[in-house]
Amino acid sequence: MNTKKEPQRTPIAEMGKYKLIDRLSAKFISSNESTLQGVGDDAAVACFKESLTVSAQKLSLEGTDFDLCYFPLKFVGYKTAIHAMGQVMAMNAVPLQLLVTAGVSQRFYVEDLESLFLGIGAAARLYGADIVSVDIQSSFTGLTLSVTAVGEADAGLLARRSGARDTDLICLSGNVGAAYMGLKLLEREKRVFTGETENDEMPKLKGHEYILERYLKPELPKTLLENLRKDDIIPTSMCLLSSGLSNGVLSIAQASGTGAKLFLDKIPIARETFEFAETEKDLSPIVAALNGGDDYEMLFTLPLNSYGELSKEYNIDIIGHICDASLGYKLVTPEGRELPLESPGM
Amino acid sequence: MNTKKEPQRTPIAEMGKYKLIDRLSAKFISSNESTLQGVGDDAAVACFKESLTVSAQKLSLEGTDFDLCYFPLKFVGYKTAIHAMGQVMAMNAVPLQLLVTAGVSQRFYVEDLESLFLGIGAAARLYGADIVSVDIQSSFTGLTLSVTAVGEADAGLLARRSGARDTDLICLSGNVGAAYMGLKLLEREKRVFTGETENDEMPKLKGHEYILERYLKPELPKTLLENLRKDDIIPTSMCLLSSGLSNGVLSIAQASGTGAKLFLDKIPIARETFEFAETEKDLSPIVAALNGGDDYEMLFTLPLNSYGELSKEYNIDIIGHICDASLGYKLVTPEGRELPLESPGM
Repeated sequence: MNTKKEPQRTPIAEMGKYKLIDRLSAKFISSNESTLQGVGDDAAVACFKESLTVSAQKLSLEGTDFDLCYFPLKFVGYKTAIHAMGQVMAMNAVPLQLLVTAGVSQRFYVEDLESLFLGIGAAARLYGADIVSVDIQSSFTGLTLSVTAVGEADAGLLARRSGARDTDLICLSGNVGAAYMGLKLLEREKRVFTGETENDEMPKLKGHEYILERYLKPELPKTLLENLRKDDIIPTSMCLLSSGLSNGVLSIAQASGTGAKLFLDKIPIARETFEFAETEKDLSPIVAALNGGDDYEMLFTLPLNSYGELSKEYNIDIIGHICDASLGYKLVTPEGRELPLESPGM
Repeated sequence: MNTKKEPQRTPIAEMGKYKLIDRLSAKFISSNESTLQGVGDDAAVACFKESLTVSAQKLSLEGTDFDLCYFPLKFVGYKTAIHAMGQVMAMNAVPLQLLVTAGVSQRFYVEDLESLFLGIGAAARLYGADIVSVDIQSSFTGLTLSVTAVGEADAGLLARRSGARDTDLICLSGNVGAAYMGLKLLEREKRVFTGETENDEMPKLKGHEYILERYLKPELPKTLLENLRKDDIIPTSMCLLSSGLSNGVLSIAQASGTGAKLFLDKIPIARETFEFAETEKDLSPIVAALNGGDDYEMLFTLPLNSYGELSKEYNIDIIGHICDASLGYKLVTPEGRELPLESPGM
């Protein structure tokens, strides 16, 4: 008697590339009016009513961007799609199409790819994009996922990184540093699990759901951006926070040819981030917030005079302001001391 | 005295990610009026006058798509860009922007990336696209290159894979099978070089420049497509030949819900392809033409009545015709025998 308990594992070679692509694509039904040609042709075709086409690409590599020991395939797909769409949204544009290519080695099965594409599909649905191109190819070196997001923007609303001006307010869509803590928690539990550290306790993920979710399943501030557009508030500059807050502030100030002052006590950090930091002696919530990365929040600048228009409902934090280039990039402590604002590699 | 003979090798870590991206991007000056925002922001922005946005992505993986033993980095960059742009051109669209992301491991140096981007830049210049996004990230597993091409199309000229109709002529922009022979030559010389085969002769690449160039440095039939548009000849369907002629014909027929007849003696095969095949007993020029891949020619269909308008200057080969679905997919021999037309995995 065959009492299967193992999940089904179908070798990719058995199904063949084209059948596999068809199977993975079958669930993706285009819903945007602008999508004219989707999966199954050489290229994707869109007819955008607004005049600007905005596109961005994210490449995720096994071992550097994600560790499959603790990063479920579904979330790898989800997060890569989020990253690509977030870059389009950071121009104050709306992502409408996703192009997906996965490179997979022989250790992956058809069902693994279905998990991967389940996550991509979930992210696409959540943010209103159609998946318009799917390709699978063989890899000798683990999993590689490349996602391109294509969207549209109204020319008058476009937010470039380079548009910040002296006295502009530096704003943030949500708290930072939590995703980095989530990563540290997963890395710690992997070390326990593989016996690298002396700790015979069971993995302790309970109570830390918030930071885990911020790392594995981040969200984008879509509604905030929609509300700002609705209220005719146009960011003078914007960028997606994926490499840390310092990196974001510096990239806007450098691209805009300005200086920037960031107020340490204005940086929003979640209670859960502080709580986890207390469990590990080497973890600083401030360092996580400034340099941790993977936040997927929007960092943007607004003219000083828009301060009055910012209703509390926006739930934006004003964390500093743009200043003249001669004043440099500074982190201002609660005591008023000015430290240099730095980011690795910048 | 320091008499350097070795080429300069700058570790990537020494330069840092952002300086490296700046250095690689510095040579890419946008020239298309439609390019509004290029390298250095979250996403690329284009303002297309024609109403359709066409985009395609190509992922190239070390070990499967290219072997760096014989594939110079410059050509890896060039060919990946050609593939992405060719997919856009296969919709009868014009590629105008390229987004580039490279994943590189520690065995690569800054100068290696400069070679890679030299090739991408050369392809972009040759076909009129701007490089609008550059990102570099670390990889544990060799070189990964992802290129997305974004372009525009006139809605009335769009050529989908699915538009072929019964009696349409199947046309080909150039000869096929040469690139596959180039790959086989390079693989043979690698085996000789690494001592896998008993052969103490020096690599014999001379006299085979044509097939090598077709594999390493393919060209796209841009002028042909421009001339067809100028003469108001619109393909009813089109695809880029990258996985073999059989694959292309089957993909058009399947997408269009038709059958297809391909005439064996009409398939254009270069003299150099035949010549190289004679040096190796296992190589068939016909098999290379049908299933070899990497041709980067355009396969397209035209209504039967456009036959008269096709001037000889186009240099197109008519290699078969579309037929009713009930007649299936056939390869017709010079003697009139009909063999099944098949492609691996389809």
